[in-house]
Amino acid sequence: MDMDTLLVEPAGLERVESALGRFFEESKLRAARISPGYHGLWETLEQCTAGGKRFRPRLVMSAYQMLGGSDVGNAAEVGAAFELLHTALIVHDDVIDRDFVRRGIPNVSGRYRMIAEKAGMTPEGARHVGFSAGVIAGDLALSNAHRLLERVETTAGVRRRLGEILDEAVFASAAGEFLDIETSFDTTIPPLEDIVHMARLKTSVYSFEGPLQAGAVLAGAEEDVITRLGDFGRDAGIAYQVADDILGVFGNETRTGKTNWGDLREGKRTALMSFVSTRPEWESISSLVGNPAMSAADADYVRRILVDSGARDYSADLAADYAARARTHLDSDTVPPALRAVLDPVVSAVVDRVH
Amino acid sequence: MDMDTLLVEPAGLERVESALGRFFEESKLRAARISPGYHGLWETLEQCTAGGKRFRPRLVMSAYQMLGGSDVGNAAEVGAAFELLHTALIVHDDVIDRDFVRRGIPNVSGRYRMIAEKAGMTPEGARHVGFSAGVIAGDLALSNAHRLLERVETTAGVRRRLGEILDEAVFASAAGEFLDIETSFDTTIPPLEDIVHMARLKTSVYSFEGPLQAGAVLAGAEEDVITRLGDFGRDAGIAYQVADDILGVFGNETRTGKTNWGDLREGKRTALMSFVSTRPEWESISSLVGNPAMSAADADYVRRILVDSGARDYSADLAADYAARARTHLDSDTVPPALRAVLDPVVSAVVDRVH
Repeated sequence: MDMDTLLVEPAGLERVESALGRFFEESKLRAARISPGYHGLWETLEQCTAGGKRFRPRLVMSAYQMLGGSDVGNAAEVGAAFELLHTALIVHDDVIDRDFVRRGIPNVSGRYRMIAEKAGMTPEGARHVGFSAGVIAGDLALSNAHRLLERVETTAGVRRRLGEILDEAVFASAAGEFLDIETSFDTTIPPLEDIVHMARLKTSVYSFEGPLQAGAVLAGAEEDVITRLGDFGRDAGIAYQVADDILGVFGNETRTGKTNWGDLREGKRTALMSFVSTRPEWESISSLVGNPAMSAADADYVRRILVDSGARDYSADLAADYAARARTHLDSDTVPPALRAVLDPVVSAVVDRVH
Repeated sequence: MDMDTLLVEPAGLERVESALGRFFEESKLRAARISPGYHGLWETLEQCTAGGKRFRPRLVMSAYQMLGGSDVGNAAEVGAAFELLHTALIVHDDVIDRDFVRRGIPNVSGRYRMIAEKAGMTPEGARHVGFSAGVIAGDLALSNAHRLLERVETTAGVRRRLGEILDEAVFASAAGEFLDIETSFDTTIPPLEDIVHMARLKTSVYSFEGPLQAGAVLAGAEEDVITRLGDFGRDAGIAYQVADDILGVFGNETRTGKTNWGDLREGKRTALMSFVSTRPEWESISSLVGNPAMSAADADYVRRILVDSGARDYSADLAADYAARARTHLDSDTVPPALRAVLDPVVSAVVDRVH
């Protein structure tokens, strides 16, 4: 699901756009001095960053402002850093998933595969050119996420904390990606506990916990607010990922912007699959799930089994459960009412989409 | 050629080992809390970092100490950051070059390809698992190069400069890798000017200029010393790369640790190729160079043409010329004699190897 529907617009969000705009202008100028091709790579990276809904910067800005921060420009730099991290992760995720398209248009790999094909390369060679360009572009985005954070004007102590938060986001996301790869050659479906752990690593840390905590740290918030926001972010992120996996199979393709078939064909490990794999119905679909030759009729059949076995309801309840847990972290005097009022709709939106 | 022969051992080099050792111990502990597999990925990354000769840290430490720096432990952290950057670049370079072996042992991609094959994956699937693990491992090394630099205890001004130097190293190396990919689908051999430009981007900036300047900045050196070291690093790096390309074709395989045939078969763009491509002899070898089916006899023939056409002598002179230019940047009162005494053997060694 699009994360943009989850959050009201905080003040100063346009400053994040300016920060990203300045960063790309500067980088393209530098790249143009090296070669037109390198300038083109930077343009492509800018386009990959342009389509986003700025969910993570919104969290940074909301937490910062609702916790009393007043230097919106500075917070916007932190928001821009998290947006670049997001770009880095999706560009490399696409390389790992061998995807050449994102949001209906060619991604970095897709673009350079086309260029190489036009230049007469073999399909296999051109694919690899696409992947290679994706590796390089993602590296640039990752390195510059650190760079933008290094430029934030603040005390040495706050900068160190911000660095630790970014580091934790990279460390956890890399772990999530890696566990994903490991499961790709393990035919057993992991238990629910592992699915939840993976959701936390892949989604909660860099998309929820990190941005909220970074905004709070920059605003000079108390330790228990920072801890509480981390707890909220962890559970909200898990709720989001479980719900997103349901939409990936049952969602409206036009709204989700992707086919609701791919996840089944890939055999993506989700709460749906973890649940159904422990039920007698599993036998009738185990050879279909993860089968590259899966037909539309097979997908419909699998969906029916997921509903009939109770896997769909179970997953929706799981998402609602984590959303409720997320809310309990807000139900205290620790998190100021203004910030609660911003974060509460985030969890409501997650649950509403799948119930 | 191994860079280790190029430099005397500066004091405190063991502190770089301790810094790297601490970093990997800490990271492996964190990773073990996530999963045994992720711990394994970190072990693999540590092994990739362990084989190096610490050329870049040596330059950092030498510049720092010869310019009056006395906090060797702090300089060692900067040295360790450049070593991790080096690891990141070689791990991703291997993904881009589709190499599964480095220094005679499986690299990150090679190791995970084996694991995936043993788990029953198809060769194509296992290759991709290998690449994916390489992408993730390189990301971790890259992100943590920034991280180690962020931890250095110094003033905000020096930290900003160090960040800029690391950023320039990443920016230039990415450009060099990208230009390499572009030339892979362009059958024309680039002019010498482009070859030299590429050598600067791929080698000079992150292996010579960056480490020397980082050491100098940390030591609080004057601006003209920093500039002079950059000029030296640029020309020494170009000399090194041109010489290394000669050894890649004519070198003793045991000493260089790689086959002296691969570069010819890949059609690697070097000064040798740029020179010979403008000569009438080119016609007799143009269909051999870059041909995956090249035989040992073909390679011998190409080598003979490279000698007879004067390409080899021309390249050796070019390396010597850049080495001499590098030396002129030291021939002034700007760079202190003690540092000159350390850097002079670097350029001598480069030239001696190819003459």
